[in-house]
Amino acid sequence: MSYLFRPRIAITMGDPCGVGPEIIVKLLAAKACAADYRPVVVGDLGALGRAASLLGAALRFEESQSVTEWERLEREDVVPVTAPMALSPEDLVHGAPTEASCLCAIRCIEAAVSMALEGKVDAICTCPIHKANLHRHGFAFPGHTEFLRDLTGAGRVVMMLAGPRLRVSLATIHVALSQVPGLITPECLTETIRITGESLVRDFGLAAPRIAVAALNPHAGEDGRFGSEERDIIEPTLEGLRGIGGSIHGPFSADTLFWRAFQGEFDAVVAMYHDQGLIPIKLAHFHEAVNVTLGLPIIRASVDHGTAYEIAGTGKAHFGSLEAAVDLAARMARHRLG
Amino acid sequence: MSYLFRPRIAITMGDPCGVGPEIIVKLLAAKACAADYRPVVVGDLGALGRAASLLGAALRFEESQSVTEWERLEREDVVPVTAPMALSPEDLVHGAPTEASCLCAIRCIEAAVSMALEGKVDAICTCPIHKANLHRHGFAFPGHTEFLRDLTGAGRVVMMLAGPRLRVSLATIHVALSQVPGLITPECLTETIRITGESLVRDFGLAAPRIAVAALNPHAGEDGRFGSEERDIIEPTLEGLRGIGGSIHGPFSADTLFWRAFQGEFDAVVAMYHDQGLIPIKLAHFHEAVNVTLGLPIIRASVDHGTAYEIAGTGKAHFGSLEAAVDLAARMARHRLG
Repeated sequence: MSYLFRPRIAITMGDPCGVGPEIIVKLLAAKACAADYRPVVVGDLGALGRAASLLGAALRFEESQSVTEWERLEREDVVPVTAPMALSPEDLVHGAPTEASCLCAIRCIEAAVSMALEGKVDAICTCPIHKANLHRHGFAFPGHTEFLRDLTGAGRVVMMLAGPRLRVSLATIHVALSQVPGLITPECLTETIRITGESLVRDFGLAAPRIAVAALNPHAGEDGRFGSEERDIIEPTLEGLRGIGGSIHGPFSADTLFWRAFQGEFDAVVAMYHDQGLIPIKLAHFHEAVNVTLGLPIIRASVDHGTAYEIAGTGKAHFGSLEAAVDLAARMARHRLG
Repeated sequence: MSYLFRPRIAITMGDPCGVGPEIIVKLLAAKACAADYRPVVVGDLGALGRAASLLGAALRFEESQSVTEWERLEREDVVPVTAPMALSPEDLVHGAPTEASCLCAIRCIEAAVSMALEGKVDAICTCPIHKANLHRHGFAFPGHTEFLRDLTGAGRVVMMLAGPRLRVSLATIHVALSQVPGLITPECLTETIRITGESLVRDFGLAAPRIAVAALNPHAGEDGRFGSEERDIIEPTLEGLRGIGGSIHGPFSADTLFWRAFQGEFDAVVAMYHDQGLIPIKLAHFHEAVNVTLGLPIIRASVDHGTAYEIAGTGKAHFGSLEAAVDLAARMARHRLG
């Protein structure tokens, strides 16, 4: 890993009517000259300018598609912006997205992915979109993650939440709890563990990652008394994976596992379902957890919160999650590419 | 609540071949003269004496069944013991319980419950038993909680885990995850919330407890997209309960709810299943969480750990959970009876 390498990170604005532009401005006002990464904002110049005025931030933005131009702008302390689509003032009302503002949020993601696939940026970092509003305007994906998989032609991807002391990968994500047991298959577990392990080596710089797998049932099923998935599916699958490098442990009773991981016993936990993994992450790292998509051909981190329409335009939004996301994306890029 | 009232707490020894005797001795050596409660140990004098020798604790124990005698012993700084059954040295091998030692653990629980029902003690506090070993010797209950319900003739009871900043009641406990959705009925929710609310008022001294109910599905089902139990069962049930006093909130997405409760927004959370409630409790309060059984006619708190056979007899066991359990039982008794 090179410490001289300063990855270039494309930061998508997200929904221009949410807090995205504000948290970007707050981050760049605090860290524009950061030594460890170079930002390129993918968004709307009007939305960014308005956020800078609101926050009294002396930031200059300039649009360009060219890497050579970005380097010139960086030397002049100007933040490079790529604007895939122009918005008018009526598309920028806080809390009231229009068809055009929704479309712009989507175009920004597409543009950032293209830039990453072309090697113009080293990672992308995404600000929040509002799924229900995008769906109303024809967006066909459950969320960012599935859209990114489609744009990059990736196979299975894994959602990881990463904080300073806990990293959690999810075997299943946005499904009803009643569907979870049926989705815990050897293939699902194997791929989740494989993708997690590969990323811990390649992106997190861990030579021999220690991965712990959570049980599905309380007390890991207590010898089959409270469910048989551990005995029938999880244990045999882990047994078959012990040889693949690094170390794979479990299935462990989930109630104590996250505490153990928090104490440093494991580098990552594979959780069986959304709340099993997100409850401990949010409790331990509410303002600093980052959502990372593993298994894509590009590096992608994301803030771990929504558009927060109710405070958009007030300047109250915290930029801690975006800061953590950009920092993590930069560290991952240095490990993978540096 | 009277601050002069010093509740008498029966502390059961649990499995005499586990860490129970040691943690009792450690607690009493540190707190025998505590101003806030009076202990009566329900256990075996041989096991207690051996633990005191092991730990170099200058404690005196004496057996008696009589409250008048207990008061005399307390004045002489002797710890009163009720010994429902005598054990021989071969029943006290660490990590190797016999039929007699298992039976003794059961007799101690029965004796403590009788003492509480007769009003000789104000609360009971239980040290760990080893369920699988007890089952081998004919014990027919899944655990302490169900046994206590049977002994006291109680109806529905609720398991609550309580720590300094989080209290969590469970709507379902030791069942496979696949069975949980089917068990979340209006009756189950109503009773869990009612018993929790009544105990918060009566035992925890809260005039208007704020109870939050966790959702079953991720994002509380996101308007039915990931499961319909919130819309079909949980929301209508909570709607019907809003009038019963105190305040009942939710269902809330579980991933952020425990963080909110930890910040002080609620006095207790009703979790839908074991790991949903125990993951945050163990992460936040690993060494200080107490297991409380609500809905019994007696006050019962318990350590939140097992027999720890692997360290029994080494003196390594922490007594923090027992200390927290006894302190909480004493506080509950002062609120309910003082």
